[in-house]
Parts: sequence; C-alpha cells; structure tokens
Amino acid sequence: MLVSESTLRSFTENIFTAMGCNAEHSVLAADVLIKSDLRGIDSHGVARLKGYVRLWEKKRINTKPDIKIVHETPTTATVDGDAGLGLIVAPFAMKVAIEKAGKYGSGWVSVRNSNHFGIAGYHALMAVEKDMIGFAMTNASPLVAPTFSSERLLGTNPMCYAFPAGKYPPVIVDMATSAAANGKLEIAQRLGKQVPEGWIQDKQGSSTSDPHALKSGGALLPLGSDRDHGSHKGFGLSATVDILSAVLSGANYGPWVPPFVAFLDPTDDPVGEGIGHFLGAMRVDGFRPVDEFKLHMDNWINRFKSSATIDPDQKVIIPGEPETDAEADRKVNGIPLVDAVVKDLNELAERFGVKQLE
Amino acid sequence: MLVSESTLRSFTENIFTAMGCNAEHSVLAADVLIKSDLRGIDSHGVARLKGYVRLWEKKRINTKPDIKIVHETPTTATVDGDAGLGLIVAPFAMKVAIEKAGKYGSGWVSVRNSNHFGIAGYHALMAVEKDMIGFAMTNASPLVAPTFSSERLLGTNPMCYAFPAGKYPPVIVDMATSAAANGKLEIAQRLGKQVPEGWIQDKQGSSTSDPHALKSGGALLPLGSDRDHGSHKGFGLSATVDILSAVLSGANYGPWVPPFVAFLDPTDDPVGEGIGHFLGAMRVDGFRPVDEFKLHMDNWINRFKSSATIDPDQKVIIPGEPETDAEADRKVNGIPLVDAVVKDLNELAERFGVKQLE
Repeated sequence: MLVSESTLRSFTENIFTAMGCNAEHSVLAADVLIKSDLRGIDSHGVARLKGYVRLWEKKRINTKPDIKIVHETPTTATVDGDAGLGLIVAPFAMKVAIEKAGKYGSGWVSVRNSNHFGIAGYHALMAVEKDMIGFAMTNASPLVAPTFSSERLLGTNPMCYAFPAGKYPPVIVDMATSAAANGKLEIAQRLGKQVPEGWIQDKQGSSTSDPHALKSGGALLPLGSDRDHGSHKGFGLSATVDILSAVLSGANYGPWVPPFVAFLDPTDDPVGEGIGHFLGAMRVDGFRPVDEFKLHMDNWINRFKSSATIDPDQKVIIPGEPETDAEADRKVNGIPLVDAVVKDLNELAERFGVKQLE
Repeated sequence: MLVSESTLRSFTENIFTAMGCNAEHSVLAADVLIKSDLRGIDSHGVARLKGYVRLWEKKRINTKPDIKIVHETPTTATVDGDAGLGLIVAPFAMKVAIEKAGKYGSGWVSVRNSNHFGIAGYHALMAVEKDMIGFAMTNASPLVAPTFSSERLLGTNPMCYAFPAGKYPPVIVDMATSAAANGKLEIAQRLGKQVPEGWIQDKQGSSTSDPHALKSGGALLPLGSDRDHGSHKGFGLSATVDILSAVLSGANYGPWVPPFVAFLDPTDDPVGEGIGHFLGAMRVDGFRPVDEFKLHMDNWINRFKSSATIDPDQKVIIPGEPETDAEADRKVNGIPLVDAVVKDLNELAERFGVKQLE
C-alpha cells in the first residue's frame, strides 16, 4: 500500500494521542517515525509503532514523562527521560545541546531512563538545521557478541555524525556498529534466504549463514565481522556508544540494557535506568565561517561523487545520499507499506478507536 | 636489540634537538614516540623518526613553529600548527581542549597546517589523566578507496575515544578506520606472505591477497571490507574523521592530504594547509560524579572481561588492554627494536653527530 505522508502522519499522531501523549508530544513522536519512513529506513518508522504500544502496555513506556536535566555545566548535561518515549526524550536532549552550543560553541547531553529513539539521523539533523555539526548515539537491546565472546553483550548501538553542506544535501553518517543490522536478518528470515558469512555466529560462536541462528542463542557480529578484518574495531565503536550513552548518564549498559521487544522482561538486577543516548552539537562557526565550511564540504562531496569507480554503473555513494533521495521521492509519491505493517497498524487503529488506513 | 626506555628517550630527544627543536619540544616529541613504542605500537614509534627527518629535510616540517589559536569560542577552537611536528601541535591543541573543558565542561579543537601526530591514544590519554573523556582523530595520506571506488581518496584516518576507569586501566578505543592498517601490509610484504582477502583491492578494484597490490595502484579497504559487510560504514567513519579534522579546520582533505613519505610530493593544488587533526575533552563530572562513573566503568570492564568465550584460551580483550600490558612489560624489560630500525636510527645518529644506540 502507498500512503501519503500526511495520512500516515495524522494516523501516527492519533495513535500516540490515544496512548496518552499530549498534543505536542504526539506531533513530535510521529514526526520522528515519519521521517524514518520518508528517508527509506522502513525498519525504524511506523513498522515499530506496535512495539512502542506493547512497551506502553507493559508500563515500560511512560506517555506523561517529566523529562528533566539532572546535572549540568555550561556545555554538558545529563537528562533523565522519566521512562518516556525516546522519540520525545532524545529531541528534548538535543534541544539542550543546541542551546548550549548556541551560547558556548558546543553542547553535549547524555541521557538515561529513556527508550528506543528512532533513527539517530533525526536528532543529528536538528543540529544541522542550525548550521551545527550533529552527533547522536544510543545503546540498544543486547544482540551483538564482542570479538572472541559467545555472549550477546551489546546492542547494534548506532552512531551518527551529521554535517551541513552548501548546494549538496548534508552528509549524514548514520550506522549500526554491527556488521549488519537486525532488520536485514529479519528480511532474510521472511524470504527463507541465507545471509552472508560474517553477519552472525551461532550459539557456540561458530560462523553461520543461517539467519535463524540469532533466535537460537546466536549473536550478531561487530562491524569487521572477524578479528582478521577488524571486528575488534566494531566492538570498540559499540563500546564507545555504550559508555557515552549509559555509563556516563546512569542508564543500563551492556547485557543489562532492557530489550525493545515487550515479550522479553528487563533484567531484575539493573545497573541503571532504562536505555541511554548521547547527543551533541557543535557550531560550525566555532571553527571557521559557515560559508567557507560549506564551500569546502561541497568540494569534498563533489570530489568523492565524481571519483573513478570500479563498476561504471555504480557511483560512489555519499553518506546520507540514498536517504535524501528517498525523502524527495516519498514526499511526492507517498510511503510504501508492506501488508504486514498495514495489518499491524490497522489492528492498533481498531484497539484505539482511530480511523484505519485504507 | 632490547633498549631501555630512558636510553631510547634520550636518543630521540637528541635527534629532535639536532633538527632544531627547542628543549621543551624535543622532550614532548620524544615522549609521544616513546609512548607508542612502550605501548607496543611499533609502527608509530621511533621507527618513524627517519620519516619525520626526511620531511624536515624537504622543508615540509618546521621545527620552530609558531603554533596558535586562529579562531575560538568558549569551547571550540581552530589551531594553526605552522607546519610543526604533529607530535608537538596535537598536544598543544589538546591542552587548549582540556583548559576549555575545565572551565565549561567540554573543549573541542580542530587543527590545520600540521603533520603526522603519532598515536591518537597519546593525545586522548592527556584528557583521561584529568578525569576527562578524550577524543583524538587525524586525517592521513590517501591510501583507502571508498566503497565502489578504484581511487585512493582517504587515509587510514584513525579515531580514538578514551575513558578513565577505577581499579582497571582506562578503556582506549584507538583504531584505523580501514580494515587493516598499512603497517600490517608492510609486515606481510617483508615476510613474502599473502594477506587475507578484504584488506586491499588492486588497481582495477578487484579483491586481492597480494600485499604488494598497494604499491601498484591498489588501495586499502575501509573497515567492513565490502558492501555486504559494511564497508560503507568504514567509509563513513573515515569521512567523519576527514571532515572534523580538515574541512572544519582548513587543512587538506581527501586526496589532497600531503603524503607522509617524503619521496612523494604534496599536490600542487592544495585545498588547505598541511594535514588536520581533531581533539576533544569532556569532563566526566560534567555528567555524573567521577567516582560513580569509575565504579560503573569497572563494572562494565569486569562484565566484558569475564564473559563466556568461544575459545577457552582466548578471553575477550578490553580496548586498550594489550597496549597497557605492553607498557607495563616494556617499562621494566626494555623496548625491542628490529635490526632495520636500529640501522635507521644509527644512520640518523651519524648524520646528526649524536651518540649511537649500542
């Protein structure tokens, strides 16, 4: 089904409102999800709405949170999300970072007691719109094994760095620190296909191409896949995200991070509160004039875009380019939803007495 | 040959002094190189001394630099290194970052007109010693091809994140953003061995295990090795380092970065000055009390160190742990130098009239 942005947006706002979010929060939470669908990151958009509802039903998401700064200096802060939707908590924290950057050049906020924050790129882009460089990270449900371990101790822990450009769209590096995202495994599972070696290991830690191995005690592998190809680097990046997001804020880290799926209970020996994020903003003009920076960003982008390629039909892709292209297309032509997602959404509509998608 | 730390330190200081560095700079530059050798990162220690001398002979390194802040806000700055040794320029910039962090919670410095800065970990550790989180990055000679490209457009562009801990040594993630570092290729070349597929591509962009392919127009591959295993992520990380270090500061970026080897001339159409770095520091107590943070860091480290392993003889390695162990060993037992490095160093000694290693 192809749904217009505005239809899907109203629908999503209505669901959040029915969950008890106030008007401002419903609009914001829907905006984060719709942005993900517009940008072609279907795994993180309305497809997850049911997941948020289930966590709310389990009282693990508070739709009337009192989000507040609990510790700060002129350019750093810790925010307590009061178990609110990460879709609300992370933009709150990013606004704090941007405000601090406006005054002092940079701002950095570590967040505890939050939930899944959608796509990291949404939050980092808030800074880019102010001619700042944006940083966004979050920890997540433990699915990834560190190099040499057979245990799942880390999430796919994404990191995002976003840079404004001039005539070109912003450069947005938004990436899971695992070799492959969990969403890719789910696609292979549905299609009954094997996955490339180097994405996952089985329960014993042996390499496998069975996409179901994760469900039988296996684990995703860090970026780099194995030691020879630098999996210790992917592990190091994931550790960095975990420490900045959670050890620094007082959230849960490592294997203690509460799972996103509501059918798995959080650990009964938490080391912190909820999950953690880390957001940051730096003013470009804290380093050099914005127009100079943008001119050189355009030159950088142009040089990489026009570089010699291995396959004449496959140009070099600038980080963020496919998502910008998807957004331009979907804003005009609508957002495609697979049947399973439409079914989920309409079940939610029925449960909450909201108008169905049709 | 096994050389004591103090012998190698005096030797190195003498060489820098003979090159025209003042006493303070000679001590500092030697300290950065010796730290690398102590920590077992032999590729970045005194083995590179000859490389710095050759660049100085070509007048590409200025041993009497006027390093200065050219732009700043309370928490950001751009530093011009005046073509000085990166070994001097980067610590200058990190001191600026630490001072700003002391006053405002965080400090961030982008550096232009510099040269190779040694190991990123040295600079990040300066922050850790002050109970701050340290960040250090640098761009470097173009050797890495972006995903889908047959051109070398990026350096091995390392990023380093360093975190203080309590009873355990600091966690130090210090990694090239390529699948393998150039030093590993050089070792395979010397031994006449093949390298794993996924480290390099040949001139046409085809995967190869010939370690000499780099010398005949090939390129190193980004972390992730190929598109299926996330090489676009390694490319994105490398791009992030390049932009923060050089587009932000006014240094050269991408293929314009001047090569470290003196026999290759810099491009005649530079887009900036020298190479670029990016350094940062954030006060831990800008987010939560230091003792609380360290307690949780220790808990994090302990949980990962004691996790179930695939091979009972291969424990999970905490980022920075092998380097800390090497340092403890080499401080007591001395620093091993291979014959080729001893020969290079003694040729330098002869050239400068400095006492040889024996």
